[in-house]
Amino acid sequence: MRSNGRKADDLRPITIRTNTNKYAEGSVMIEVGDTVVMCTASVDEKVPPFMKGQGKGWITAEYSMLPRATQVRNQRESARGKVNGRTMEIQRLIGRALRSVVDLHALGERTITLDCDVLQADGGTRTTSITGAFVAMAMAINKIAVQHSLPKFPITDFLASVSVGVIQGETLLDLNYNEDSTAKVDMNVVMTGNGKFVEVQGTGEDSPFSREELNELLASAEKGIMNIVELQKEALGPIADKIAVQAMTATGGAGGHGNRK
Amino acid sequence: MRSNGRKADDLRPITIRTNTNKYAEGSVMIEVGDTVVMCTASVDEKVPPFMKGQGKGWITAEYSMLPRATQVRNQRESARGKVNGRTMEIQRLIGRALRSVVDLHALGERTITLDCDVLQADGGTRTTSITGAFVAMAMAINKIAVQHSLPKFPITDFLASVSVGVIQGETLLDLNYNEDSTAKVDMNVVMTGNGKFVEVQGTGEDSPFSREELNELLASAEKGIMNIVELQKEALGPIADKIAVQAMTATGGAGGHGNRK
Amino acid sequence: MRSNGRKADDLRPITIRTNTNKYAEGSVMIEVGDTVVMCTASVDEKVPPFMKGQGKGWITAEYSMLPRATQVRNQRESARGKVNGRTMEIQRLIGRALRSVVDLHALGERTITLDCDVLQADGGTRTTSITGAFVAMAMAINKIAVQHSLPKFPITDFLASVSVGVIQGETLLDLNYNEDSTAKVDMNVVMTGNGKFVEVQGTGEDSPFSREELNELLASAEKGIMNIVELQKEALGPIADKIAVQAMTATGGAGGHGNRK
Amino acid sequence: MRSNGRKADDLRPITIRTNTNKYAEGSVMIEVGDTVVMCTASVDEKVPPFMKGQGKGWITAEYSMLPRATQVRNQRESARGKVNGRTMEIQRLIGRALRSVVDLHALGERTITLDCDVLQADGGTRTTSITGAFVAMAMAINKIAVQHSLPKFPITDFLASVSVGVIQGETLLDLNYNEDSTAKVDMNVVMTGNGKFVEVQGTGEDSPFSREELNELLASAEKGIMNIVELQKEALGPIADKIAVQAMTATGGAGGHGNRK
Amino acid sequence: MRSNGRKADDLRPITIRTNTNKYAEGSVMIEVGDTVVMCTASVDEKVPPFMKGQGKGWITAEYSMLPRATQVRNQRESARGKVNGRTMEIQRLIGRALRSVVDLHALGERTITLDCDVLQADGGTRTTSITGAFVAMAMAINKIAVQHSLPKFPITDFLASVSVGVIQGETLLDLNYNEDSTAKVDMNVVMTGNGKFVEVQGTGEDSPFSREELNELLASAEKGIMNIVELQKEALGPIADKIAVQAMTATGGAGGHGNRK
Amino acid sequence: MRSNGRKADDLRPITIRTNTNKYAEGSVMIEVGDTVVMCTASVDEKVPPFMKGQGKGWITAEYSMLPRATQVRNQRESARGKVNGRTMEIQRLIGRALRSVVDLHALGERTITLDCDVLQADGGTRTTSITGAFVAMAMAINKIAVQHSLPKFPITDFLASVSVGVIQGETLLDLNYNEDSTAKVDMNVVMTGNGKFVEVQGTGEDSPFSREELNELLASAEKGIMNIVELQKEALGPIADKIAVQAMTATGGAGGHGNRK
Repeated sequence: MRSNGRKADDLRPITIRTNTNKYAEGSVMIEVGDTVVMCTASVDEKVPPFMKGQGKGWITAEYSMLPRATQVRNQRESARGKVNGRTMEIQRLIGRALRSVVDLHALGERTITLDCDVLQADGGTRTTSITGAFVAMAMAINKIAVQHSLPKFPITDFLASVSVGVIQGETLLDLNYNEDSTAKVDMNVVMTGNGKFVEVQGTGEDSPFSREELNELLASAEKGIMNIVELQKEALGPIADKIAVQAMTATGGAGGHGNRK
Repeated sequence: MRSNGRKADDLRPITIRTNTNKYAEGSVMIEVGDTVVMCTASVDEKVPPFMKGQGKGWITAEYSMLPRATQVRNQRESARGKVNGRTMEIQRLIGRALRSVVDLHALGERTITLDCDVLQADGGTRTTSITGAFVAMAMAINKIAVQHSLPKFPITDFLASVSVGVIQGETLLDLNYNEDSTAKVDMNVVMTGNGKFVEVQGTGEDSPFSREELNELLASAEKGIMNIVELQKEALGPIADKIAVQAMTATGGAGGHGNRK
Repeated sequence: MRSNGRKADDLRPITIRTNTNKYAEGSVMIEVGDTVVMCTASVDEKVPPFMKGQGKGWITAEYSMLPRATQVRNQRESARGKVNGRTMEIQRLIGRALRSVVDLHALGERTITLDCDVLQADGGTRTTSITGAFVAMAMAINKIAVQHSLPKFPITDFLASVSVGVIQGETLLDLNYNEDSTAKVDMNVVMTGNGKFVEVQGTGEDSPFSREELNELLASAEKGIMNIVELQKEALGPIADKIAVQAMTATGGAGGHGNRK
Repeated sequence: MRSNGRKADDLRPITIRTNTNKYAEGSVMIEVGDTVVMCTASVDEKVPPFMKGQGKGWITAEYSMLPRATQVRNQRESARGKVNGRTMEIQRLIGRALRSVVDLHALGERTITLDCDVLQADGGTRTTSITGAFVAMAMAINKIAVQHSLPKFPITDFLASVSVGVIQGETLLDLNYNEDSTAKVDMNVVMTGNGKFVEVQGTGEDSPFSREELNELLASAEKGIMNIVELQKEALGPIADKIAVQAMTATGGAGGHGNRK
Repeated sequence: MRSNGRKADDLRPITIRTNTNKYAEGSVMIEVGDTVVMCTASVDEKVPPFMKGQGKGWITAEYSMLPRATQVRNQRESARGKVNGRTMEIQRLIGRALRSVVDLHALGERTITLDCDVLQADGGTRTTSITGAFVAMAMAINKIAVQHSLPKFPITDFLASVSVGVIQGETLLDLNYNEDSTAKVDMNVVMTGNGKFVEVQGTGEDSPFSREELNELLASAEKGIMNIVELQKEALGPIADKIAVQAMTATGGAGGHGNRK
Repeated sequence: MRSNGRKADDLRPITIRTNTNKYAEGSVMIEVGDTVVMCTASVDEKVPPFMKGQGKGWITAEYSMLPRATQVRNQRESARGKVNGRTMEIQRLIGRALRSVVDLHALGERTITLDCDVLQADGGTRTTSITGAFVAMAMAINKIAVQHSLPKFPITDFLASVSVGVIQGETLLDLNYNEDSTAKVDMNVVMTGNGKFVEVQGTGEDSPFSREELNELLASAEKGIMNIVELQKEALGPIADKIAVQAMTATGGAGGHGNRK
């Protein structure tokens, strides 16, 4: 039995509130169980130096935990004077994942920065950040598309993420902190609305895993992500329709043409 | 006419929600107009090295703005690798102000860290942080007092803060961002519930001010702070009574006995 | 009885020597009791990026203590790799205070950097720095005014600073280190020659203070500052007359028109 | 046709030289095509603070590129004053992977630090580092096992790593730099000698991938890794036998019992 | 008796392998006894800001030790976040020494960066770096000279370096680590092929030395350096002839005309 | 003709004032021409970690330039967040030189930190620092010797330093900034009162130098240093006699027995 009576393949309750910040071009407060992340999308009408002159835009992300997002207070990275490895790994992951469903040429020479600030952490902060940041990004890109009458809507598909793991031989979906701490295998999966993989990161530090276990984990993740995409569509309303159109026409293709940095 | 039809000595609408974080010993989400600050109080059962062995506790504060708390996204201090001067000035102010109403001997060798994270900024973020942090601190100290059956309740008075300024010759209470940007004189005042000053920081960079102007500013601030203290009492409920008892018996004395670092 | 037989409203002996550095455009060695600060003013014929193209100049300050300025050797900030909060607070204060008496438009697109290096510290290093830096700045600005035949002399008033405090119920002027360490209330005041306030920073960390105490502190500070301004005039000689002319014509107005950063 | 006439599932030529450093407890110079990595294992007879008193050892790794390991000289991280995100991600990966095949209890309270310094980079530096570091680690652990007569040999299985990718619809094994730059899908796989997964990190930033593609990638990686393990065995000689014994008895179990940090 | 049966004025065995890196414009793996340094020369077709517009090139050097180059593992400077004093001193020395035999005008507005990475350290790492870096630099400059048909070959003389010291009253050439640790006087000498001094750095921290001792040290160093230059000539082959021509024509003059930064 | 009518082997006017700081155990304001350095010696009754338990003391030095010590203002190292290579090189040199004339066993487990802060720079700041720091150190050590009745006075000889150089073929003593900038060869020499070398650092970046030139430089430096030692003796008064006694008895031996770090 999981806490809150969840079954092995149940997600935690998820709420996605939009327009939670009066300044940001897109903003979302997402709750997945007791994990709470504030995602804002900020538009900058230029690109970083390494992208200049290519006629393409850029998507980047930053991730941070408030000091008391965790059971024991964690020191601020600004006070320590540097961003730690885990934070860098997560923000690189978020940026990479989001770029996979954006047609950077269609976006034009603009940068969208997604800030994912974890107000409360109970497992799955990176996957929750990706899910929430996608919605905030879609809102911001929609504003650009409308304001500049972009000929093509630059988002090519939906994108969401969830964690899965193996605990006592059982495959569990959407681990909370306690589950995550005891899992033998731990995997984060990012998928598009069309059911393709964008990121698969599985680690069996405490116990290597077999091909069969890997297959079960991926199946559970896919089921969870498809449910989360439905919640994103509700939150996005009419913007979701614009994405759906792109996803249909560009099946399997969109995303990147040399997005790689 | 001020925005929202405020009169010169009107505060903006204020809400103080408590228990907004499931881990922190005290937590508050405070809104003053469009300024939103999350304040958490974290208890550590030891003191920093410079305070060791004195039988006294310590109160310290950290302050930060989320990147999109502001109209234009501001760079994270963790990314820049250092905390800037303004941030340091504000967190020193918050810590100093809170210590002035805590009997550190009564608290015992414990540290309480107040984290003030600005989710949205529209002027008065430092005064709002002090007002909110006081409530979060009181909640945390109350937990300690109950749990350890402290003989004396360690908070000696209420404490709140507000900004005042002079715009076009008029003294205005509780400046929002636009007002703050155009004020010739800018003052932050921290007072106790007993009406004494803890901090008075007035600056007339754009225009030096006379003794008469100073007096008007202080009168306006005092009026505002007394109103804010009433809201703190509501938010604190029965804890407020414990503070009131201390404030009555210890009038004019409490706070510090060599709190100074 | 205060050390050296000072009365409550006596300043310590003050000497202001000018031209103590052969390279700087303005330089001062100021001694206030045993506090010794070397102030140099350096002219740069351009402004920082955030001020560019506004036709205005900029005044900025840096403050530092030599390692053995204090009774116990303090570690160099360069060795620690960062400037601490107290230093940043002080250098922001010095810069802000000096800008309040400079007509930045009249100065033109130039930056003057005031370096205040404390060779020996015995209380009041920040107020001594402001008093000394004003003189060094006036010397440098005079050189600019002469060399470039500026139509208007850019300094609009004198400016000096002093500390005051409450010890054992008594208001004392110009605290030395021992007094400062035991003061219940501690206040730094910056005023113009015309008797207006530029900065009022009072803190009662160890004991909140009443309106009456505040008034006494301000009165004592004003008396002290008026005496210090006389010493600045002596040190500046003919340059003082140019300032006096500006202070008379521009009473209450000068200084800033949007100096604020 | 791949450069050097490789077929889609061919590895590049691999050489593993041991004892290439006269001080290190274990050392390896590994070449995979034109990628050259020097791996040293250093033994420290204590563990980091967070591991103290648990009766367990620790394995950690550091990774760095020499400035001219790359076609264009890259700036030293020491000169920049910080380690970048990519480096941190890689050294976390190496450490995690190696820990998965070490019985930390059997190792005892010791730390082994693997330094992987890339002398020349032509793709696959992180997978080459893992493969080489495993050999260096085994040499160092063998020395400990012999010197301290450890009752159980602490390495539970072989461990190697390789990259795979999709280029123009084809699954390619062991990408060199040019291939890596043009791959649509990029995956690093770490496996044990027993054929279980320790890390699977696939990313389709430029093009999301299907379940079928994922399966092909994993199959190709498995084949490559099994070949690499044979080369490790040759390099390790008699030490390989000790590992083989452990791998046989502890099939599927070894590695971690709460290795997780 | 010295280890390996060396006499007081014997060098250790020296090998200089060239073209050890496939990307660098010049590269050398130099071994002096058990000291192993990898030197690469990287050409950049521009100069640093302080050299711009003078029609001259620049030579600069960086030096680093791999963590396990030493008996006890040393922490990476990148991990510590700063380059230490010894490293800075050495890289300034290497750059300065190399510039003394380069006609920067003849080189043109280009920068050559020499990276000296110590793979294994057994005394004399800085002198070995200079000796090896000279060869790598000569290879890179030759490439430039050929490719751009430079009218004058920009290297004006050979350059090599060795350490000498006094141990138990005896002058020893080319100290290894154990000798270096016990030497009373320690001196590093850099000379040109024409027998002139470029750097003489002698220190008698443990015991001041007389003029006579100094003379003996210099004589021993000169003898050693002349032998090392012969090995450089072998390693450089035909490039050595180009240098020899310059050294003959420009005897005593070459090197710098205002090279000093 | 040199500026101020100096001959080739004339020193600039030198003044050494003692007791210029009320807190430091030893303090000196030294002027050599227009170069002004404030040297303070601070005693700490413990040694750094690497020296613990050896029954020996430690001497260390820090060096810094005030921002306007130079013709053009130089940025503070604290503001840049790191100490540059030149500064590190100089402070290592000062510490090493001073240690050569201190019997660290006789000093006992204490650290003396010499702070050399350059108030005005006109060439020779490192040699002036050594000369001044020696006097400040002697004052501090004398205090320790008296207070703790040390059986042996721990200073074994006098120590002073001067620069020499070659300009237009002529050997010049004690270069000022303009001379230093144009010198082809530049050498700093540190000697004991007994005429032995402690440091010889000669560099011919712009023009390698012959053995004859080297000999002339050393002769000129020796003559200058002997004159400077006389001025140190005057400044030290009776303390000089204690040093002289040690220097006589311990000729050639004193200083270090394993001082090396």
